[in-house]
Amino acid sequence: MAWGTKVRGGLGRFFEYDTPKIVHIRSLRVGILYRLVQLTIIAYIVGYVIVWKKGYQLTENVESTVTSKVKGVVLTNVSLFGEDNPTERVWDTADYVVPPQENGAFFVTTNVIVTPNQQQGICPELLPSCSKDADCPRLSPSANGVRSGTCNTTTGSCNVYAWCPVERDQEPALPVLNGTEAFTVLIKNQIIFPKFGIRRRNILDSFQTNSTYLASCHYDPVNDPYCPVFVLADIIRLAGENYSAIAVKGAVIGFVIEWDCNLDLPVNWCLPKYSFRRIDNANDVSAKGWNFRYANYWTDTESQNHTVQRRTLVKAYGIRFIFYVYGVAGKFNMVPFFTNLGAGLALLGLAVIFCDIAILYCSKKRNFYKENKYYEVKDDDAFLIEESQQSSTNRSPSYSDFQ
Amino acid sequence: MAWGTKVRGGLGRFFEYDTPKIVHIRSLRVGILYRLVQLTIIAYIVGYVIVWKKGYQLTENVESTVTSKVKGVVLTNVSLFGEDNPTERVWDTADYVVPPQENGAFFVTTNVIVTPNQQQGICPELLPSCSKDADCPRLSPSANGVRSGTCNTTTGSCNVYAWCPVERDQEPALPVLNGTEAFTVLIKNQIIFPKFGIRRRNILDSFQTNSTYLASCHYDPVNDPYCPVFVLADIIRLAGENYSAIAVKGAVIGFVIEWDCNLDLPVNWCLPKYSFRRIDNANDVSAKGWNFRYANYWTDTESQNHTVQRRTLVKAYGIRFIFYVYGVAGKFNMVPFFTNLGAGLALLGLAVIFCDIAILYCSKKRNFYKENKYYEVKDDDAFLIEESQQSSTNRSPSYSDFQ
Amino acid sequence: MAWGTKVRGGLGRFFEYDTPKIVHIRSLRVGILYRLVQLTIIAYIVGYVIVWKKGYQLTENVESTVTSKVKGVVLTNVSLFGEDNPTERVWDTADYVVPPQENGAFFVTTNVIVTPNQQQGICPELLPSCSKDADCPRLSPSANGVRSGTCNTTTGSCNVYAWCPVERDQEPALPVLNGTEAFTVLIKNQIIFPKFGIRRRNILDSFQTNSTYLASCHYDPVNDPYCPVFVLADIIRLAGENYSAIAVKGAVIGFVIEWDCNLDLPVNWCLPKYSFRRIDNANDVSAKGWNFRYANYWTDTESQNHTVQRRTLVKAYGIRFIFYVYGVAGKFNMVPFFTNLGAGLALLGLAVIFCDIAILYCSKKRNFYKENKYYEVKDDDAFLIEESQQSSTNRSPSYSDFQ
Repeated sequence: MAWGTKVRGGLGRFFEYDTPKIVHIRSLRVGILYRLVQLTIIAYIVGYVIVWKKGYQLTENVESTVTSKVKGVVLTNVSLFGEDNPTERVWDTADYVVPPQENGAFFVTTNVIVTPNQQQGICPELLPSCSKDADCPRLSPSANGVRSGTCNTTTGSCNVYAWCPVERDQEPALPVLNGTEAFTVLIKNQIIFPKFGIRRRNILDSFQTNSTYLASCHYDPVNDPYCPVFVLADIIRLAGENYSAIAVKGAVIGFVIEWDCNLDLPVNWCLPKYSFRRIDNANDVSAKGWNFRYANYWTDTESQNHTVQRRTLVKAYGIRFIFYVYGVAGKFNMVPFFTNLGAGLALLGLAVIFCDIAILYCSKKRNFYKENKYYEVKDDDAFLIEESQQSSTNRSPSYSDFQ
Repeated sequence: MAWGTKVRGGLGRFFEYDTPKIVHIRSLRVGILYRLVQLTIIAYIVGYVIVWKKGYQLTENVESTVTSKVKGVVLTNVSLFGEDNPTERVWDTADYVVPPQENGAFFVTTNVIVTPNQQQGICPELLPSCSKDADCPRLSPSANGVRSGTCNTTTGSCNVYAWCPVERDQEPALPVLNGTEAFTVLIKNQIIFPKFGIRRRNILDSFQTNSTYLASCHYDPVNDPYCPVFVLADIIRLAGENYSAIAVKGAVIGFVIEWDCNLDLPVNWCLPKYSFRRIDNANDVSAKGWNFRYANYWTDTESQNHTVQRRTLVKAYGIRFIFYVYGVAGKFNMVPFFTNLGAGLALLGLAVIFCDIAILYCSKKRNFYKENKYYEVKDDDAFLIEESQQSSTNRSPSYSDFQ
Repeated sequence: MAWGTKVRGGLGRFFEYDTPKIVHIRSLRVGILYRLVQLTIIAYIVGYVIVWKKGYQLTENVESTVTSKVKGVVLTNVSLFGEDNPTERVWDTADYVVPPQENGAFFVTTNVIVTPNQQQGICPELLPSCSKDADCPRLSPSANGVRSGTCNTTTGSCNVYAWCPVERDQEPALPVLNGTEAFTVLIKNQIIFPKFGIRRRNILDSFQTNSTYLASCHYDPVNDPYCPVFVLADIIRLAGENYSAIAVKGAVIGFVIEWDCNLDLPVNWCLPKYSFRRIDNANDVSAKGWNFRYANYWTDTESQNHTVQRRTLVKAYGIRFIFYVYGVAGKFNMVPFFTNLGAGLALLGLAVIFCDIAILYCSKKRNFYKENKYYEVKDDDAFLIEESQQSSTNRSPSYSDFQ
């Protein structure tokens, strides 16, 4: 044959079509079985994976910022800072939000133990524990400081190097700051889906137009689900807790903002959903609730050349709000769609495998089906030669021989 | 047949090969169609999924730490702390970075409203709102404190329990701290991809050798893209904002560090990319910009046994920088590769399905093709028996009967 | 044919079964090859993807909160605050944890440089750099403040507007706070897997019953792997660092908590794993270790109507602990399982492709196999007509013609 012809031959061969030979079995039973299995698989792939589980979408997690601004004042009537100061005392934001700003969290003081005007010195520790100096090993640490080695006979407690006087750390019974539940907090949450280039904020653009609504509204899951101003009492109630109980010893509350955005729908439908939950264990046996200590330091010039460093120690109980912003955006994308589709098509193969097993092994007419499905080819190296009578060119199936 | 033979038989059967019978159709039209469809699918899988979308890589998100150190001083010439203090006042890092350290963020004060030496007491609130005591319901909260129930006739505003004197909260016109744009910040960002065990930092090892570069360089997207020292003015400019405008009322700026690492390439190519964007809404109607209040507390010993607690209230406007470290590392991994490949192979099946539909339903010669592709087998339970003339052993196709 | 019949016909056709015709090749060689390839693929899919890589599980990342409480006191014996104060000085939590609370981190001071009682004024800067006023350009910034334009002849350094006296910023040799390594920190970590609705805490419920264990235990990777109280010295040791070295200039330490939860197993087996690593670069050339400055402000009433604002500047070196909570939960889910299975089934197709290539191209008997596998159909539009002798109805293969 001429070379040219060969090429045309090869080229022709490339442009020919290979399709599997199909055995078409006209059996109602098998047919129904086949379609049922197929149907189940298709229902799973299309209905569940693609549609229900949004298998056609590429998803991305949210990136977000939250800033908060607490508002409110309370008037207390307890003497905390010594008798000289007026017992009426007002607490404003600068007093009860400590530290003034945090990243992704904020703290509202609800209860305090104040120890004013401490200075370094030697004084008796709180708990009586000694009768003689020997009971107070020098330099041994104690809750309030480091023991000086002497026993204070009047109080019956060891003397300690410490900030004197030492803190009276009694368990609080009632919250000192009474009325914090009425405080409001303005939340600003900006999110972005970098890959999709979508930016959203929890303060809807519609609010920008009427600032009066923002100024007056309070979040309510039913009536005002998009108002960014929250009353502390509401937050605690929605978290399923009792404010007056929490206010005494403090708590850690999760402030959850969820954004579940289907970007195949109008982007305006991508809205925040707020929820709240208590995070610390209400039944903790150790360090229950939430509190921490901080101090304000200054130096007194007692005389011309005598200065004393002093501090006011505050043990603050309160509610620590921690922000969690979750949320995913989904958008149609070829890769997940076709990957799921491809895997699905492959699963369709299971239908044939399943039915073949049925007709070839479980059916009474298995031999008949085998004869028709299989086309026997014997190769010379087969060691079963003695068992078979057929020639390598024999076209007729002969499985029956092996039964 | 002997048992031994049976086993050898079964064993032999297991070690035989099943391959689908293929109908090879020598038609140029169909052949070309077939290859085109195949080509498209292969191009999609190999070109798009595997190569372009890196379908052969396992990806992992970055874990990171960022620490920052701001440097710079400004000299202000306004009297903020009462006339007794020198009007020249220097602000250094300890003064304008509040709180001194944050996790994943830092704040630089650009503007302040200072209310020095407040003390608890009763004084008129800022806004005139009363002519007689009846206008000031006792204990009703106000912006500055809690109303005492009397009206201050001189100021025409209600008396409040508050930190006195109350803050003069006028809208700022110019930033008090003039020159903050020249401040520099040193950023240290350490990242880790735990699964891949890769650690990188934004201060390249090459810099370690010449500390002079680090000491002198300033980040520039073009000339110094890897210098970890940033001038605030540059950051704001690159965020597309106007510093002098922002300095007045503050802003929240996202400091984005991106690590996009292909670990199949040399790890040294895994480098940070910086970008900046304003996060708060420049057009906010409520609480525009960024500010917060904090106070410094101390106690004055006015006489032997008379102490007064005082505070200096600061309303700080400024720029809050929040760090976002994104980034993924990708590395070749069998699972994603073969999963995508397998799903791809399955999609190739679409080519046959597509062409079969073409030749079996759309082609003029459909019957001819059907005769050749299908091999008819009639089962006794078929209820179509009366329509067909062939016997269950009949080998020759007979689709034509059904047309 | 009647319409009714046609419908029944069509209906019947739908409920018939199509299964590919299989060429069964009884060749031991090919059979073994075939099964080997199949086995490899199945081993990969089932063994590696499904079982080893848990391809049957849907995974979710952890959401977590960490709160910490540091305990301990140290007694220092250096004069930091001027001679008037007692040299024995106690540091408690409120003194050395700055800021008092952070989100996801905490800082423990180990070393300080204190500059007490600074006030705004003009004083010589630290480093001698001038001999005449001309060397001190007015308003040029310096490390300590802004130059006033005059040279202080006694110190030979420029006068600056600054907080006076300026900080003596010598490199620290020994840590001032000696004994911080004995401090303990109580960690509370609450995690949640929202999708799975699973909540866990690092303080095991079993501990709730005996609070004495919590009060006394210290974390130890071997003996007390679940005790939530950590000794700082242990943390640093486990991070592979030397505490006394770190205490001088500070460091940033990653406090890693890992939760690797297989929710197909009892949820009680989902337990935290702690590990620690140094994050900052021990060999940094610039700003080595970790330190920052903060100040305490107050106002002195020096006379009836003369007040001076003062501050105490603290440069704090210390260990910054940053929490990383990683962890995934996996739970059986149909979608990943079937997606991996489907992709796997498709890969099985590779076995046939592989063996077909072997027998059709690499085998000596390739023609024999081609004859049996392929079933030749010639279409009239084929341009190879002249090369073939067979008729379109010819059933017998004729590949040999093309060799």
